[in-house]
Amino acid sequence: LTSEGLFTPIFSTPAMQEAMSDRAFLQAMLDVEAALARAEARAGVIPTDVVPMVEASCRADLFDIDEIGRAAVRSGNPVVPLVRMLTAAAPGEAARYIHWGATSQDIIDTATMLVVRRGLDLLIADLDGAAARCADLTEHHRSTLMVGRTLLQHAAPITFGLKSAGWLCAILDAHQHLSHVRSRRLFVQLGGAVGTLAALGVRGPEVLSHLALDLELGEPTLPWHTARAPVAETGAALGLAAGAVAKIALDIVLLMQTEVAEASEESAPGRGGSSALPHKRNPVGSAAVIACARRVHSLVGALLGSMLQEHERAAGAWQAEWEPLREALNLTGGSVSRTREVLEGLVVAPDRMSENLRTTRGLVMAEQVMMALAAQIGRPEAQRIVEESSTRARESGRHLRDELREDQRVRAHLAEGDLDAALDPARWLGSSNAFIDRALARYRAASSPAPA
Amino acid sequence: LTSEGLFTPIFSTPAMQEAMSDRAFLQAMLDVEAALARAEARAGVIPTDVVPMVEASCRADLFDIDEIGRAAVRSGNPVVPLVRMLTAAAPGEAARYIHWGATSQDIIDTATMLVVRRGLDLLIADLDGAAARCADLTEHHRSTLMVGRTLLQHAAPITFGLKSAGWLCAILDAHQHLSHVRSRRLFVQLGGAVGTLAALGVRGPEVLSHLALDLELGEPTLPWHTARAPVAETGAALGLAAGAVAKIALDIVLLMQTEVAEASEESAPGRGGSSALPHKRNPVGSAAVIACARRVHSLVGALLGSMLQEHERAAGAWQAEWEPLREALNLTGGSVSRTREVLEGLVVAPDRMSENLRTTRGLVMAEQVMMALAAQIGRPEAQRIVEESSTRARESGRHLRDELREDQRVRAHLAEGDLDAALDPARWLGSSNAFIDRALARYRAASSPAPA
Amino acid sequence: LTSEGLFTPIFSTPAMQEAMSDRAFLQAMLDVEAALARAEARAGVIPTDVVPMVEASCRADLFDIDEIGRAAVRSGNPVVPLVRMLTAAAPGEAARYIHWGATSQDIIDTATMLVVRRGLDLLIADLDGAAARCADLTEHHRSTLMVGRTLLQHAAPITFGLKSAGWLCAILDAHQHLSHVRSRRLFVQLGGAVGTLAALGVRGPEVLSHLALDLELGEPTLPWHTARAPVAETGAALGLAAGAVAKIALDIVLLMQTEVAEASEESAPGRGGSSALPHKRNPVGSAAVIACARRVHSLVGALLGSMLQEHERAAGAWQAEWEPLREALNLTGGSVSRTREVLEGLVVAPDRMSENLRTTRGLVMAEQVMMALAAQIGRPEAQRIVEESSTRARESGRHLRDELREDQRVRAHLAEGDLDAALDPARWLGSSNAFIDRALARYRAASSPAPA
Amino acid sequence: LTSEGLFTPIFSTPAMQEAMSDRAFLQAMLDVEAALARAEARAGVIPTDVVPMVEASCRADLFDIDEIGRAAVRSGNPVVPLVRMLTAAAPGEAARYIHWGATSQDIIDTATMLVVRRGLDLLIADLDGAAARCADLTEHHRSTLMVGRTLLQHAAPITFGLKSAGWLCAILDAHQHLSHVRSRRLFVQLGGAVGTLAALGVRGPEVLSHLALDLELGEPTLPWHTARAPVAETGAALGLAAGAVAKIALDIVLLMQTEVAEASEESAPGRGGSSALPHKRNPVGSAAVIACARRVHSLVGALLGSMLQEHERAAGAWQAEWEPLREALNLTGGSVSRTREVLEGLVVAPDRMSENLRTTRGLVMAEQVMMALAAQIGRPEAQRIVEESSTRARESGRHLRDELREDQRVRAHLAEGDLDAALDPARWLGSSNAFIDRALARYRAASSPAPA
Repeated sequence: LTSEGLFTPIFSTPAMQEAMSDRAFLQAMLDVEAALARAEARAGVIPTDVVPMVEASCRADLFDIDEIGRAAVRSGNPVVPLVRMLTAAAPGEAARYIHWGATSQDIIDTATMLVVRRGLDLLIADLDGAAARCADLTEHHRSTLMVGRTLLQHAAPITFGLKSAGWLCAILDAHQHLSHVRSRRLFVQLGGAVGTLAALGVRGPEVLSHLALDLELGEPTLPWHTARAPVAETGAALGLAAGAVAKIALDIVLLMQTEVAEASEESAPGRGGSSALPHKRNPVGSAAVIACARRVHSLVGALLGSMLQEHERAAGAWQAEWEPLREALNLTGGSVSRTREVLEGLVVAPDRMSENLRTTRGLVMAEQVMMALAAQIGRPEAQRIVEESSTRARESGRHLRDELREDQRVRAHLAEGDLDAALDPARWLGSSNAFIDRALARYRAASSPAPA
Repeated sequence: LTSEGLFTPIFSTPAMQEAMSDRAFLQAMLDVEAALARAEARAGVIPTDVVPMVEASCRADLFDIDEIGRAAVRSGNPVVPLVRMLTAAAPGEAARYIHWGATSQDIIDTATMLVVRRGLDLLIADLDGAAARCADLTEHHRSTLMVGRTLLQHAAPITFGLKSAGWLCAILDAHQHLSHVRSRRLFVQLGGAVGTLAALGVRGPEVLSHLALDLELGEPTLPWHTARAPVAETGAALGLAAGAVAKIALDIVLLMQTEVAEASEESAPGRGGSSALPHKRNPVGSAAVIACARRVHSLVGALLGSMLQEHERAAGAWQAEWEPLREALNLTGGSVSRTREVLEGLVVAPDRMSENLRTTRGLVMAEQVMMALAAQIGRPEAQRIVEESSTRARESGRHLRDELREDQRVRAHLAEGDLDAALDPARWLGSSNAFIDRALARYRAASSPAPA
Repeated sequence: LTSEGLFTPIFSTPAMQEAMSDRAFLQAMLDVEAALARAEARAGVIPTDVVPMVEASCRADLFDIDEIGRAAVRSGNPVVPLVRMLTAAAPGEAARYIHWGATSQDIIDTATMLVVRRGLDLLIADLDGAAARCADLTEHHRSTLMVGRTLLQHAAPITFGLKSAGWLCAILDAHQHLSHVRSRRLFVQLGGAVGTLAALGVRGPEVLSHLALDLELGEPTLPWHTARAPVAETGAALGLAAGAVAKIALDIVLLMQTEVAEASEESAPGRGGSSALPHKRNPVGSAAVIACARRVHSLVGALLGSMLQEHERAAGAWQAEWEPLREALNLTGGSVSRTREVLEGLVVAPDRMSENLRTTRGLVMAEQVMMALAAQIGRPEAQRIVEESSTRARESGRHLRDELREDQRVRAHLAEGDLDAALDPARWLGSSNAFIDRALARYRAASSPAPA
Repeated sequence: LTSEGLFTPIFSTPAMQEAMSDRAFLQAMLDVEAALARAEARAGVIPTDVVPMVEASCRADLFDIDEIGRAAVRSGNPVVPLVRMLTAAAPGEAARYIHWGATSQDIIDTATMLVVRRGLDLLIADLDGAAARCADLTEHHRSTLMVGRTLLQHAAPITFGLKSAGWLCAILDAHQHLSHVRSRRLFVQLGGAVGTLAALGVRGPEVLSHLALDLELGEPTLPWHTARAPVAETGAALGLAAGAVAKIALDIVLLMQTEVAEASEESAPGRGGSSALPHKRNPVGSAAVIACARRVHSLVGALLGSMLQEHERAAGAWQAEWEPLREALNLTGGSVSRTREVLEGLVVAPDRMSENLRTTRGLVMAEQVMMALAAQIGRPEAQRIVEESSTRARESGRHLRDELREDQRVRAHLAEGDLDAALDPARWLGSSNAFIDRALARYRAASSPAPA
C-alpha cells in the first residue's frame, strides 16, 4: 500500500486511500453482482451453475475504470456501462442472469456499504491505538501538575493525566459512534427499479435475506433508495469522530507553542521542517488533523442535505453522496491516523508544565484562596477580596501571596499556613484522580473482549 | 402557549418556541442552581437549611432577562451576572452558598441539556403522531396502485402504501435517533473552573452523582467542558430527523403539482392562499418543512465545527453552540410538527394515481415485459428488444403493447395473454406487500410499550 | 484530454480535471519558482545567468508526484520536498538560488492562483456558451406560451422566452462574479517566512512587482498569508455560479417530468438509460449539475471557515483550503459545462406547454379575471368573487368561465367579450416582452467586445 | 436602542438588533406597499389621491406582529394576512388599490433589501471605525518589534505595525465587499404573480422604475423571484466580512494568552470576569467575534443552497432565506462591532513583545543567519549548517550565537560583527516599512472622500 497524489497523502493514509479508491469501489460493485447471483441461485431465481461463471467475471482487473467513468457521463452512473461490459465479458449462459432484478442504485449503495465497512474497520483500529496511548499517558501523568486554561487564560491547576483522560473519553465516544454504525447501521440495498423487487416475483425477501447474509450487512425493513439514514448517519458519525480527535490536535498545537512548550510532536529528521526557516519544528501532524476535521464537517452538511430525495430515486441528491462519503472516510481516516501518530510520538514536558504554573505568580491559585475564605465568610465577600488582591498583584507584579498577606481581611481568617496551603496547586486538584480512575475504568471496560 | 414573531411561527410551534425561549432557558439555569444546592447539601458540602432559601430565589420571574443579557456582553456569558443578581436577591445565609464550586459553563451546559430534553420530548410526541398516521396510510393504501418515479420519470408501478411505508420507516429511524439521545446522551455538566471540581474537595463525584439523579440526566465519566459529543450528537440527531421528514414533504410537494395531483395538503379556509392569485392552494406546510430542514442542516455543520474547543474552555467555539442548538430544536420542531399536520390532513387521490399510471401508454410496464422475455431469452437480448419497442412507442405515440405485438421476437416468446399480463401493473408489485408488512410490524414493535 | 476515474467524469470535464490535476498544480508551482528566479534576477537579487538553468529544471515531468506527496506528510506541505528535489536536480550554480527568499506558502498560494485562473477561464468559456444558447432560446420562444408555476402550482401564464431570459440573467450574473475574480482578485503571493520579505533586503517590493507582472497576477498591498479574501472570494464566486446554473437544471428536471414533458434533455443513444428500465430517459445532465452545486456549496462553507487563520501562518485552516478549492473548481466546472450541454441539446415542446396551460380549465387565468373586476369594484371584492368561483370550479370540475358566467356580480361588470379576453393567456403577459428585450440587451452589451 | 434577550446581546448590537427586528421588517414591508402606491400613481395605474390614505395606513404600530405571524402559518408567508389587515384598515377608496399588481414575494424581497441596506450601513460604519483604529495602531507600532509566528511557532521577527497593517487590509477588503453590495447589488423586486407584471399591463417597467427610484434601490433587468444572486451575494459578502474580522479576533485571543501576553482586550470593571475565578480577564470580545463568524459561515452555506429555486417561486428554498439572512446580518454586525470595540480598547505590550523575541535564544534569527551564509555559499549548504546549529542550540539550551561561533564553516564566512548583525531582529524586517506604507496609503485612498 502506498499513498498517491501531491497533497492527499497529508490528509489520508495509504490503507484508507486504497480502501476508498475507485479500484476498490469497482471491486465492491462486482462483489455485489457476484453475491447477488449467489443469493438468487440459492433462492432458485437463477440457475446455480451460472454462479461460478458470474463470479469469475467479477474481477476489477478485467475492466478499465476510466472507460466506465467516461461512459457513466451518459447514463448518469457507472453501473449501466459496468453491467453492459460485464454482460459482454461473461460466458453466454451467465450473461443472461447478470444483475437480475437489480437496479443501478442497488449495486452502488450496497458497494458503498462494503467500502464504508472497510473504512470503519481502519478507523476503529486507529482509534484503538489512540485510546491505548491516551490511557498510558493518563496513567503515567496522573500527578503531573499543569495549568488548566479557560478561554486560553491560566485558570487553575489540573494534571496532564486529567487532560489526557478527557482526550481518552472523547476517543471512546468516537469509537462508540463508529462501532455502532459499523455493527448496526450498514444495510444491504436491494429494491429493483422502484423498490418493489418486482422482477423477483414473490422471492424478493428471500433473495434480500440471502444477500444480506452473504455480504454480512444488515437487512433493511425496506429498500432505502430514498430514505438515506444509513448514509447520513455514517456521515454524522464520521463528523463526530473527526471533531473528537481534532480537539486533541488543537490542544497539542496550543501546548506546542514556543511560549508554552509543554508538549510537542515527535521530532524526526525532516519532520515539521520549513522551506525558509532552518530551525522550525512545526506541528504538522496536528495541523493536518485540524484541516481534515474542518473538511469532514463541511461534507457532513452536504450528506445531511442529501436526505431530501425525490420519490423513488433522486435527481441530484443521491449523486451528491457518492464522492463526499468516501472523501469523508478518507479525511476522517487521515485525522484519526495522524492523531494516533501524534499521540504515540508525543513528548511531554512536565518541567515546563510546572514552570508555567508559576507564571502568574500565584494568580492561578486565586480560586483556592477564595474558597478557603468562602468557607469562613461566604462566597460573595471572599470573591470580592480575592479579586481586589488579584488586581493589585497584576498591577504591581508581586506574588499574590504578598498581596494577600497584607490584606487585613485575609489575615483575619486565614493563618499563614492555611494561606500557603491555599496557594499550593497540588492541593487544588479536587476530583482529578477520581475522574482519571473513571476514565481508565471506562477504557478498560470498552477494550476488554466481551464475555463469551 | 402562543407563537410569537412575524416569521418564526411558520418554522416552529408554540410549544417548542416556549420550550426554547429565553425565559425557559433562564428558568433551566435557575433549576440547575437550585439542584446544585440540593446535591451539595445532600453531600454535606453546604448546610441543608439554606436549600429552601436558594430554591425560593430560583424563579425566572424575579429576574430581568434583558438586563442579564446586556450584562452578559461584559462577562461573555449570562451566568456571571445571573449569579451576582441571584446572590444579591438571596437571603444572607443562602447567598454565601449559591453556585458553590461551579463554573458558568456547568450551569449553561446543564441547563442546555434540560432544555434539549424538553425539546426532544416534544419532537418525539410529534414523530409518534406522524408515524401513526403513516401506518394508517400504509395499511389503507396497501393496494392503491400508483407510478413509481425515479429521477422524476415514470419508472414502474408501486402502491401508495409502499411509498408511505418508506416514509414510516424514515420516521421510525428519526424516532430512534432522537430517543437514543433523549435517554442515553444527555449528561449533567459539573466540573468547576477547570474540570477538577477542586472546590468540592473529595466530594466532587458524590455531588455530581446527586446532581445527575436530581435532574434525571446522565452522569458523565468526566466533565465534558470541551468534549462536546453530547451537543454535537444532539445536533446530528436533529439533522437526521429534519432530513427524514423533509423527504416526505418533498414527495408531497411533487405529488401536489398541478400536473400530478395525486395528493394534496388539506384544504382549509385561507390555507395556502396567495396575495395575488385567488385560485391558489399552495403546499405551505410542506414548503415550511423543507425550509426548516435546510436551515437545520446548516446549523448541524456549525455544531460539529464547534467540537474543536481549546484546552479546558473554548474561546468562541462553545459560545457558537448556544443559540444554534436551540435554533436547531425550534426548526426541527417546526419541521416535524408541520409534517405531522400535513400527513394528518393529507388528501390522497387514488383515481388520479391510477390515471397517471396510464400516461406513458404502457412504457411504465417495460421492465415487466423485459423480464418476461428475459426468462426466455436472457436479460441482454430482452433489454435490447424492449428498448427498441419503447423508442418506437415514444416516437409514434402508440401504446407499447401495439409496438410489442408487431415485433416478431416478442411474438415468438410471449403469447398474447402473457403480454397482457406483462402489461398489468397490479402484477408487477413484487414484494410490495411483504415490505409493507415488515414496515407495519416494525412500527407496531416500536410503538408497543416495552414489556415490564 | 480525457476524463479519469469511476465517478469523477460525471462531475467535471476533461479539461477542468486536467487543469486541476496534481500534475498541473506541480507545474504551476514550478512555474512560480522559475518566475521568482526571473523576477529576482531582474531586480539584481540573484545572478541573471542562473535563470535559464532554473527554468530548465522547472518541468513537472522531471519529478515523481507520489514521492513528493509522501514526503509532504513529514514537512506538512509538498514545497519542502519539492525544493529539496529541485535543488538536487539543478546545476550547482542554479541550485544556490532556487526558492531564494520565498516560503512554502508563497509557492503554493501563487500556484493556486495560476491554477484558479486557468479554471476560471474554462468556466467563463462555458458560461459564454450557455448564455449564447439561452439568448437564442429567449429570442426564439419569446411568444411561446406556457404556465408559470409558483410553489410548483399553476399560477398564471408566462412565455418560455421569459423563463429562459431569467436563466440568461442568472448566467450573466455568474459570469460577472467569475470575471471579476478572474481580472481583479487573483494575487501573487510573496512574503517570505513571515510576510516581511526579509531575505530580499530592500528589494522586496521590486521583486514582488516583477513577479506579479511576469505571472500576470495582481500585486497585493501586503502578503496575504493569513488574510484569505482571495481564496474565500473565489470560493464564494464559484458557489454563486454553481447555484445559478443549478436553478436552471432544477427547472429542467421539473419540466422533464413525465407528467409535464415541456422540455427534455437531448436524447442520444445510451443517454439517460437505466440498468433496470429499458424505456427510461433520465435527466442525467441536470441531475449531475444539481449534485455538483450541492457539493460546491458545502465546500464554500469550508473555505469561508478557513479565513480564521492564526498569526503569520495557520495550523490547519490554510491546509484545509488546498484540496477543497480545486474540488470546488472541478465541480463548478462540471456544473457549468453540463448546463451548457443540457441547454444546447434542450428539446422544447411548445405544444405540450400550450396543452398544460389548459389543465386547470381556466383557473390559471384567475388573476386576470380578478384584475379586470378589480378595475371596476376594487381589489378586495374582486378577489373574494374570484376565489369563490375558483373554489366552485375546482369542486365541480367545470371550466372557470362557466362558473364566472353564472355569477351575477361578474356579469354586472364584465361583458361576455371582456370575460373571454380575461381568460386569454396571451393577453396576460404584461411586461414579458419588455423584460425579454432588457435581458437580451444586457446579454448583447455583456458579450460585445469592449470599445478600444 | 437597547439590546434584548439572554444571549443575543453578546452576538449583535442594539442598533443591528433593532434594524433586523420583526418590527423593522414589518415597517419595511409597509414602506414598500406605500412606495408601490406612489409609483403606481405616478405611472397613472392607480388614482393619485389614494396615495396619502395608503401611506397613512402603512405604519407598523397599527398592526399586531404576533397576529400576523400566526396567520402566516396558514398562508405560508406574512404578506397575505398583512395585506388583508391593511386593506381592512385603509379607507374604502384606498383599500381598493393596496398591493395592486404585486405578489407577496415582491413585498418580502424588497423589504428585505431595505432592511439589508440599513444593516450594511451599520456594518460599514463599524468597519470604518475599526479601520481607523488599525491605521493608528499601524502607524504607531511601525517599529515595534515582535515575533512572527507560523503554525504557532516562533519563526522570524516582524513588527506589530506590520501585523496590524494586515488586519487593516483585511478590513478594507471586507469594506469593499459590503460597499459593493450596498451600492450595486440591492435591487427592488417587482414581478407580480409570475414575474410578468401582468396586472400592470404595459406600464410594468415604468412602475418598476419609479419604485426603484423611490426606494433608492437598483432596478433589476428582470424580476429575480427565483434568481437569488442578490440574496446569496449579500450572504457571501457577510461571510467574507465576518471571516476577515474573526482572523483579527483569533490573533488577539492568541496574543492575550497568559504565556504570550503581548496584547489584551481593555480591562474594565466586570469585563471578562469569571463566575468561578476571581483573577480571570477573559478575551470575551474576541471570543464573541469568533463565535459570530462561525455561525455566519454556516448561514452562508444555507443561503447559497437556497439558490436552487423551482420555476417562478420556490417551495422551501425561498422561505429558508428569510430568517437566516437577517440572522447573518445580526451576527456579522456583532462580529464587526465587537472587533471595533476590541481594537479601540486594545492594550499593546511592546516590552513583552521584545522579551518574547528573545525566548528562543537566537533561533528566531536563524533565517537571517542562513541568508547571510547563503550569499557566500549558496542556500542549500547554508541551510544545512544553520539547521545543525539550531538543533544543537535546541538540545543544549545555549544561545544560537554560541553554537554558530563554534562552527568552523560559519567562522570561515561570517566575521564576528556580521554574525551579530545577522542575529539582530531589527535588521531582518525587509519590506515591513514599505508594506506598512502601502497599507496606509490604501487606507487613506479608501477613506478620503471621492473627488467631485
